Amino acid sequence: MSATSLTTLPATITNSQWIYLRHPDGIVGPEHYELRTQTLATELSAGEVLVESHYLSVDPYMRINQSLKPTYNELPHALNTVQSAGVVARVLSSSVPHLAAGDWVEGMIGWQTHARIHHSMLRKLDPAVAPVSTALGVLGMPGRTAWFGLTESGRPHAGEVVVVSGAAGAVGSLVAQFAKRHGCKVLGIAGGAAKCDWLRDNLGLDWAVDYKAHHSAEALSAQIKQLTGGVDVYFDNVGGMVTDAIIPLINRRARIVICGSISQYSGGLDQPELGPRFLHHMLYQRATIQGMLARDYVHRMDEMQRIVGPMVTAGQIVFEETIVQGFELLPATLNSLFTGDHRGKLLVQI
Amino acid sequence: MSATSLTTLPATITNSQWIYLRHPDGIVGPEHYELRTQTLATELSAGEVLVESHYLSVDPYMRINQSLKPTYNELPHALNTVQSAGVVARVLSSSVPHLAAGDWVEGMIGWQTHARIHHSMLRKLDPAVAPVSTALGVLGMPGRTAWFGLTESGRPHAGEVVVVSGAAGAVGSLVAQFAKRHGCKVLGIAGGAAKCDWLRDNLGLDWAVDYKAHHSAEALSAQIKQLTGGVDVYFDNVGGMVTDAIIPLINRRARIVICGSISQYSGGLDQPELGPRFLHHMLYQRATIQGMLARDYVHRMDEMQRIVGPMVTAGQIVFEETIVQGFELLPATLNSLFTGDHRGKLLVQI
Repeated sequence: MSATSLTTLPATITNSQWIYLRHPDGIVGPEHYELRTQTLATELSAGEVLVESHYLSVDPYMRINQSLKPTYNELPHALNTVQSAGVVARVLSSSVPHLAAGDWVEGMIGWQTHARIHHSMLRKLDPAVAPVSTALGVLGMPGRTAWFGLTESGRPHAGEVVVVSGAAGAVGSLVAQFAKRHGCKVLGIAGGAAKCDWLRDNLGLDWAVDYKAHHSAEALSAQIKQLTGGVDVYFDNVGGMVTDAIIPLINRRARIVICGSISQYSGGLDQPELGPRFLHHMLYQRATIQGMLARDYVHRMDEMQRIVGPMVTAGQIVFEETIVQGFELLPATLNSLFTGDHRGKLLVQI
Repeated sequence: MSATSLTTLPATITNSQWIYLRHPDGIVGPEHYELRTQTLATELSAGEVLVESHYLSVDPYMRINQSLKPTYNELPHALNTVQSAGVVARVLSSSVPHLAAGDWVEGMIGWQTHARIHHSMLRKLDPAVAPVSTALGVLGMPGRTAWFGLTESGRPHAGEVVVVSGAAGAVGSLVAQFAKRHGCKVLGIAGGAAKCDWLRDNLGLDWAVDYKAHHSAEALSAQIKQLTGGVDVYFDNVGGMVTDAIIPLINRRARIVICGSISQYSGGLDQPELGPRFLHHMLYQRATIQGMLARDYVHRMDEMQRIVGPMVTAGQIVFEETIVQGFELLPATLNSLFTGDHRGKLLVQI
């Protein structure tokens, strides 16, 4: 094959891979993975590209895919395979004309240092628009989820009250800011005073509430009611007790967007928790619950980027990234999604 | 006032009234009501009509309005007042030209034998279209709820699977038939083998399932899954364990219509039961839950009647009525809504 490459590549390179080995019953962590190396031939077949990973994503959905019950996928992530993940990588060599050595790309490369991958699986990035790591955050899957989840399922109107759970996270922090730009009054819910200060001071939210400061859904609910009076749009990344607190506060014709339920991911998807029944509130308020996934808007990625890209370039959106250095820390970083204290998009850099 | 009347009326008549006296903690029944009589002057003010009740409605929503917490109304039904209710009545005398003595009307007259009421509160009925009692059923509030709840919130398509809980009830039995007319495969859920036979044999449903034959939501779920494969539209009148069984069976982009939660009305609205969390299913399937109320479609009553009226006249819709004889049985009949074994619309006739 004709190919471009930065330097003359050896016939093989060593590829390090994190293998998903064991199903977690509770929180996922290093004990469910194994680091392996393989020898990867660098010669390309037609259409292939050889890439070197630079930013590797950890996302809550990874734990959904480890559930033993059917989820949005019929089958769980296969054991004994590389953990699938979005990755920002650099092209080392290419067999196709529109990708050249040195180009930045994004794709589902997985937790590995290198890969030979078909060009159709990769999205070429323009480093002039924004740092390439944003292809895993504000200008990637989380940004798409936040933009379309809020605008298409949440349908916010100026003057309405929007409440976001997981508001300091990759998706929630964007939803909260997009809602502000729609003229809404926005309350963010997060764990800990530091995150809440950040939501108020850096993201400009009207209110931020620390759910960890409350012992019950009733107490959390009372504080949110006192601040907002009632909720028109609830964008839910968290589920569980936080959601229990908010549903009784919905206003007439409220829209509840179910984007995630991270509080339930470490076991609750296999064996559901019990929580208070609430469907009567949907009846009383003629409200809507709508589940949505990033994958439903893959075909509209360009639309999101056309709108949000200029906001990012103009510095109008806070898109914090928490970047962990070191490929060896990937499983521990995934674990910290469920236990830790990061803000914005959590990434591992090699 | 100039007025028409069937015969010369006495200056006063005796009006019997069922007074809502005490809040029920559990199931509502005769102990929460008191029968009183009042003397009613027959002389009409401008715009008034004197009516005599013939068919009086008992409806599940009456128990919602007795909840101590805010519902779709900010305040519960006032104590020490006549139980509000839809009634089909006959005009005894009228002060307005478009209503004459002998005409049939329907309105929120309440549980009383007579009333002087402003003509704007009454809807004139045409006995040639259908029996006047249908103004409380298929051509009244339950018909409106069923038609718009199914078509606007459920959005059924030919070939889809529609599941209806409370399928032998006033609303459910109509929803199930309307869904059949949309070309759907319909499964009705009801309590007891007799109701299920009726759903299959008289309403022509594809399947009927007796929830009382199952000890757990899991067992009920397994049977429904085996029959249908999965659920595209779930029209819920019942909530509780039946709904727990169905939500895990929803197909991609399913629509769940919350029209009622009768299993929760006898206490669960004040102190919610615990049930399994299920919002992850909404996420997985990108499904929608929509609460709806009859009152949202009051302004489209004529549209429902224009469509459903001809079906009724042509005998294409089974609209069973369970008619209890005797004004004195109203509270006991309301009680039997939650405990009894009626089919279709439950009414009391004087």
